[in-house]
Amino acid sequence: MKFELQYTDAQSKARVGEITTDHGKIQTPIFMPVGTQGTVKAVHQRELKEDVKAEIILGNTYHLYLRPGLETIEQAGGLHKFNGWDKPILTDSGGYQVFSLSNNRKIKEEGVVFKSHIDGSKHVFTPENIMDIQRTIGADIIMAFDECTPYPCDHQYAKTSMERTHRWLKRCVDRFDSTEDKYGYSQTLFPIVQGSTFKDLRIQSAETIASFEREGNAIGGLSVGEPAEDMYEMTDLVTDILPKDKPRYLMGVGTPANILEGIGLGIDMFDCVMPTRQARHGQLFTTQGIINIKNQKWERDFSPIDEELGGYVSTFYSKAYLRHLMRAQELLAAQIASVHNLTFYLWLVKEARKHIIEGDFREWKDIMVKKLMQRL
Amino acid sequence: MKFELQYTDAQSKARVGEITTDHGKIQTPIFMPVGTQGTVKAVHQRELKEDVKAEIILGNTYHLYLRPGLETIEQAGGLHKFNGWDKPILTDSGGYQVFSLSNNRKIKEEGVVFKSHIDGSKHVFTPENIMDIQRTIGADIIMAFDECTPYPCDHQYAKTSMERTHRWLKRCVDRFDSTEDKYGYSQTLFPIVQGSTFKDLRIQSAETIASFEREGNAIGGLSVGEPAEDMYEMTDLVTDILPKDKPRYLMGVGTPANILEGIGLGIDMFDCVMPTRQARHGQLFTTQGIINIKNQKWERDFSPIDEELGGYVSTFYSKAYLRHLMRAQELLAAQIASVHNLTFYLWLVKEARKHIIEGDFREWKDIMVKKLMQRL
Ligand SMILES: [Zn+2]
Ligand SMILES: [Zn+2]
Repeated sequence: MKFELQYTDAQSKARVGEITTDHGKIQTPIFMPVGTQGTVKAVHQRELKEDVKAEIILGNTYHLYLRPGLETIEQAGGLHKFNGWDKPILTDSGGYQVFSLSNNRKIKEEGVVFKSHIDGSKHVFTPENIMDIQRTIGADIIMAFDECTPYPCDHQYAKTSMERTHRWLKRCVDRFDSTEDKYGYSQTLFPIVQGSTFKDLRIQSAETIASFEREGNAIGGLSVGEPAEDMYEMTDLVTDILPKDKPRYLMGVGTPANILEGIGLGIDMFDCVMPTRQARHGQLFTTQGIINIKNQKWERDFSPIDEELGGYVSTFYSKAYLRHLMRAQELLAAQIASVHNLTFYLWLVKEARKHIIEGDFREWKDIMVKKLMQRL
Repeated sequence: MKFELQYTDAQSKARVGEITTDHGKIQTPIFMPVGTQGTVKAVHQRELKEDVKAEIILGNTYHLYLRPGLETIEQAGGLHKFNGWDKPILTDSGGYQVFSLSNNRKIKEEGVVFKSHIDGSKHVFTPENIMDIQRTIGADIIMAFDECTPYPCDHQYAKTSMERTHRWLKRCVDRFDSTEDKYGYSQTLFPIVQGSTFKDLRIQSAETIASFEREGNAIGGLSVGEPAEDMYEMTDLVTDILPKDKPRYLMGVGTPANILEGIGLGIDMFDCVMPTRQARHGQLFTTQGIINIKNQKWERDFSPIDEELGGYVSTFYSKAYLRHLMRAQELLAAQIASVHNLTFYLWLVKEARKHIIEGDFREWKDIMVKKLMQRL
């Protein structure tokens, strides 16, 4: 993986760059659609590429490990071959999912023992096998095995957890560096900054993570329920410490406003289930603001979903038709809304990129944050 | 509407023709995907046109009348404008649905009083208002209001029902002929032959229907549970009576074998929910036979769903990937399987058309009926 920092904004910490992987280039800042089970829900691979214009997608290690399982993915020749997505893939470490299993997992220094949500079978994730699993899934970008602390959590818990995450990172790095790329193309490992909403911990974690000198770095444990101000404050602290010449990934973020603020704080990569999950519930992010398409208001609004955004679904289908599909619980409703929301998210980061280059990012961002978050 | 009969097979009653509507031409024999609520389930309009290559789709009067309702459709400028499908649309009469409501409907000579399955509200369908409703929906081809008799049913019930269907047809025709095309393009009315599985009734009904001299004729009340031989026998009887120079539509049929046999008996138009409904349950119709994609057998079969069929979904996605999506209950599973099955159905009727023209339809059909219905 290669990262080229191309522009830096004079009035904020926003940056423009380009990541080069063996599966193609990614222009940053970028939003990465989430393909939990090897599919971005309700979206064809062709749509993802040609309509949404996604440049990289996520896969979820926990889900893919359980189903279809590593043997199937390995025999297919990796996830790219299995699902047909030939651009870059990033996999999370599965940590977030196993920690969420609460009653069905035990955390030990060695790793986490957990029970499958599908059939109750027992499994163990360790920093070492999580590297092997992600190599086998075939991710271009592999994430370290960490604990994403819940919010709120006390300082002692956050500190203990962060320290274990750092010890686990050492084990991840050792394993990753002593194993080969699985399918002939290059794979890289991103470590993750933790430390909850505590400044001292975030600083300590960012310094530790930076010291590993990997090709890219991530910030985890945010967007888990804390106030947005805390998220921005922690991000700001951490991006001051993480190296400038490497991409920075803010995990699991967020709303359009969160993403624009994150870009302003020097973040290059984002992922979130929000655009697809909210789509399935009828919430649309548009260039004019947020629409709840189930509202009566749209019953006879035959205007396109989002003329200004452009693209097939957003200009072909009307608000009234989408509302009808949503109320009639038709599958096409989720399909249209998902492609629309993802197209919007990719448009948003491309617009941000353009404004950083043009030099008016901050003014534009302040206007857009208000405009995009208003409810229509 | 215009129908041109172009070829007639020498060894069977199969025919090739072309229907011209104000929304474009339909090459027969044709299969019409069902878009119950104004959407062919899980399929984008663009896919329907470019991948499936559908030439006409169905809308369901009962469903569209209840939701989104006539006011919305009328304000949109008709169903074509509402859902964006600019090729021909045929609507059923809603009779089949209201008769299926069993405890929630009362049949009288005037019409049928029924309760909405959505909110329990009371409504009346009469031959007259059903014509008005379909004109307002904006169908190119409008179906007469009939009773589709259940199977089995006794001769007396079938006779009484058929006679009422004929009286209702007279009222449909009177209303239709005394009203105008709603949106500027031509609308036409197809009457429906009934008579259950009784030869004398089918003959009597076919003669009555033919005597109305409409632009096309339909055969209803088949594919409702009777043995396939009965379906074929009734169809054979009826197509001997219906005029040759008008399209014949066998309603609600059926499996690939049913469709090929129907074509051999002189049918020009078919519709069925089978390809989309079975798709959602993991049953695929392919050029090699029937696949239950949930079977373990396909777990690591990385070959395309149907190489020979061609088209995006059938050649891009593998059997193993589709099986994974189906087991993981991902929406994309229904999307892929629905587009695939419909593409297959449209391929099937196009192949039949080709073989009728080439003169080897009967031999081809006998081989295909066996091949396509075998379970792989
Ligand atoms: Zn999120
Ligand atoms: Zn059917």
